[in-house]
Amino acid sequence: MKISARNQLKGRIVEITKGATTAHIRIDIGGAVVTASITNAAVDDLGLTVGKEAYAVVKASDVMIAID
Amino acid sequence: MKISARNQLKGRIVEITKGATTAHIRIDIGGAVVTASITNAAVDDLGLTVGKEAYAVVKASDVMIAID
Amino acid sequence: MKISARNQLKGRIVEITKGATTAHIRIDIGGAVVTASITNAAVDDLGLTVGKEAYAVVKASDVMIAID
Amino acid sequence: MKISARNQLKGRIVEITKGATTAHIRIDIGGAVVTASITNAAVDDLGLTVGKEAYAVVKASDVMIAID
Amino acid sequence: MKISARNQLKGRIVEITKGATTAHIRIDIGGAVVTASITNAAVDDLGLTVGKEAYAVVKASDVMIAID
Amino acid sequence: MKISARNQLKGRIVEITKGATTAHIRIDIGGAVVTASITNAAVDDLGLTVGKEAYAVVKASDVMIAID
Repeated sequence: MKISARNQLKGRIVEITKGATTAHIRIDIGGAVVTASITNAAVDDLGLTVGKEAYAVVKASDVMIAID
Repeated sequence: MKISARNQLKGRIVEITKGATTAHIRIDIGGAVVTASITNAAVDDLGLTVGKEAYAVVKASDVMIAID
Repeated sequence: MKISARNQLKGRIVEITKGATTAHIRIDIGGAVVTASITNAAVDDLGLTVGKEAYAVVKASDVMIAID
Repeated sequence: MKISARNQLKGRIVEITKGATTAHIRIDIGGAVVTASITNAAVDDLGLTVGKEAYAVVKASDVMIAID
Repeated sequence: MKISARNQLKGRIVEITKGATTAHIRIDIGGAVVTASITNAAVDDLGLTVGKEAYAVVKASDVMIAID
Repeated sequence: MKISARNQLKGRIVEITKGATTAHIRIDIGGAVVTASITNAAVDDLGLTVGKEAYAVVKASDVMIAID
């Protein structure tokens, strides 16, 4: 499957925290760590585990710009 | 200002494309380039220009995970 | 690629409208038509054309519920 | 109330899972099931129950397109 | 229609700017002005005009918190 | 830090509810109360407490318009 989302940052999962319905996944994309909040069901469905290669995927309309 | 968004990736603006109301900004965050779709008004308000240091900011709930 | 987004509705593209930077894609998912607002760049990158099979993909946290 | 969100898919609630603060609602829209992640407060406020008719509502800018 | 989105701020439309596919609507909610980026199609469908009463509607998961 | 998000509504935190991974923050922006769903980590990182001044920040593309 190929998706329209403009941002697909390759990395490795470094942390998975499951809550009651929502999980937080942290991916090291090389230099920076990206946090994703997804459903527990998605974690199970994709078989996500710490150490696994994965992509952080973000639609362009969900990215903001900030300056110092 | 300090914001709750978990993802604040520092980089440098490499491209700005303004449309009728919506602009696309591309930031090189070191190895990867992130695309943001924001309003033209925000581009003007922040004085964004190519070459300027900036952050790509994304709320954790807007990040998905993908695997090959 | 397999993505965490919970909603992946299969259908067929029935309309593509390109704006200055943003395009609107309409997909018939069988009974209902879903509208997506994505970048022109994504349309070109995926080679989207009317009549092509495609999925409307939505993260669960972007779905609201309404009642009459 | 009439809302600007382009996607309002009518269906019937087939599952409600409440977490600590966040609930997952699954709606059968005829052929496909859509998952929504909303607040527990919204579930109570709308009186959502399994079997009730409801709409899955999604803003066009939150819909991505994928191809095989 | 009653929607799960937690934030429904009543106000009056003070500006409508249509682009090629995307429009920007500004609503005065009393003291503050909120900007919405929606499709041109939604503007036409709801018959939005300057001076009309309207609500700015935002899902709780799309709200961030910032401090000075 | 200055951010591109068009909507930055100043107010005061009136309620913080932490779940397993996700917290709900309610901010009184003067007349209306806005609800934000953010990570527990963000609450801790920003040191959010009831009574503190804060902003509800929303990207324009996440705002919908509704009419009665």
